Amino acid sequence: MAYTAESIEQLAEQFAQLPGIGRKTAHRLALFVLKMSREEVDRFAHALVNVKEKVRYCSVCSNITEHDPCSICSNPKRDRVMICVVQEPHDVIAIERTNDFKGLFHVLGGALSPLDGVGPEDLRIKELLQRASQSEIEEIILALNPNVEGEATTLYLSKLLKPLGVKVTRIARGLPVGSDLEYADQATLSRALEGRVAV
Amino acid sequence: MAYTAESIEQLAEQFAQLPGIGRKTAHRLALFVLKMSREEVDRFAHALVNVKEKVRYCSVCSNITEHDPCSICSNPKRDRVMICVVQEPHDVIAIERTNDFKGLFHVLGGALSPLDGVGPEDLRIKELLQRASQSEIEEIILALNPNVEGEATTLYLSKLLKPLGVKVTRIARGLPVGSDLEYADQATLSRALEGRVAV
Repeated sequence: MAYTAESIEQLAEQFAQLPGIGRKTAHRLALFVLKMSREEVDRFAHALVNVKEKVRYCSVCSNITEHDPCSICSNPKRDRVMICVVQEPHDVIAIERTNDFKGLFHVLGGALSPLDGVGPEDLRIKELLQRASQSEIEEIILALNPNVEGEATTLYLSKLLKPLGVKVTRIARGLPVGSDLEYADQATLSRALEGRVAV
Repeated sequence: MAYTAESIEQLAEQFAQLPGIGRKTAHRLALFVLKMSREEVDRFAHALVNVKEKVRYCSVCSNITEHDPCSICSNPKRDRVMICVVQEPHDVIAIERTNDFKGLFHVLGGALSPLDGVGPEDLRIKELLQRASQSEIEEIILALNPNVEGEATTLYLSKLLKPLGVKVTRIARGLPVGSDLEYADQATLSRALEGRVAV
């Protein structure tokens, strides 16, 4: 576009490649950056590069960290008999926010998805099996997303893990807290009935 | 948050200061950056800094540009008898996209808003009056946002501009193309009736 600054267009292009940011929003963000102070923009640019420079994957659980092993794996207060298996690092954050889990994590890096070309060798499954066969491990909690890919991965992993003599569980599927039974979809309601517990 | 990388948190904070990006989205974007290649991240960081380094305001119309005067003000093919007054640089882009205006622009840098502490001295009004008093200028088109601030600024500017002997117009308010009359709000419908034209 000849009627605006070339570098604004270039920055807008960069924003537009981020997930969930369309062309118009990208443009708005680029113009916002123009109004930020030079120091703020430098801090932003530095934070971007910093992520690539400092962040690595924990050699034990594959979560993102700046120090290997990560703060969870190296924390002596964590319960070392349980491993919670999740798809992505942000799932670790979500579970930690509940303050209800004191065990260790294992980040798979995704879920099985043949359509997207994600097979078992693309996930950190081998590493999980190694950890699960350690004598101190008593339970593996599968906390994958409750969608087709997550379900398939849950079944796949439970078949591999059970022969190791470890207890394998999965997080419950049911009605979200604060929701209306009336508006629940059929699949969720089926799972909620199936997973009913004594009161 | 101790259970993730510090630099991810720092980058998320940077994203969260952008307009329309909340804490969760900021986090998602930071994790996305982690998956980008080092080259892509460097390009992004460079584009950010570049905007602050290269972009300046056109000394004639105050639009953003890398070369002063901007490509519109320095284009000999533009019609130099008309000036379209807008609030922000993105409004210039919107009007240019229509391909219906071949005159010059004047970017005010906002609209009068006493509640936000924006008075006439905060906008490029003095510069507009100077340009409007040049002998070749025949028409000033006020294209401010159709909200309270834009309306107030339109009235304020028209009072200042009319004594200069220049024709002052404003863009039409009415029903958006493709909308339903049934769902139009009362104010828009009133303006549409008021601005009716012969067919």
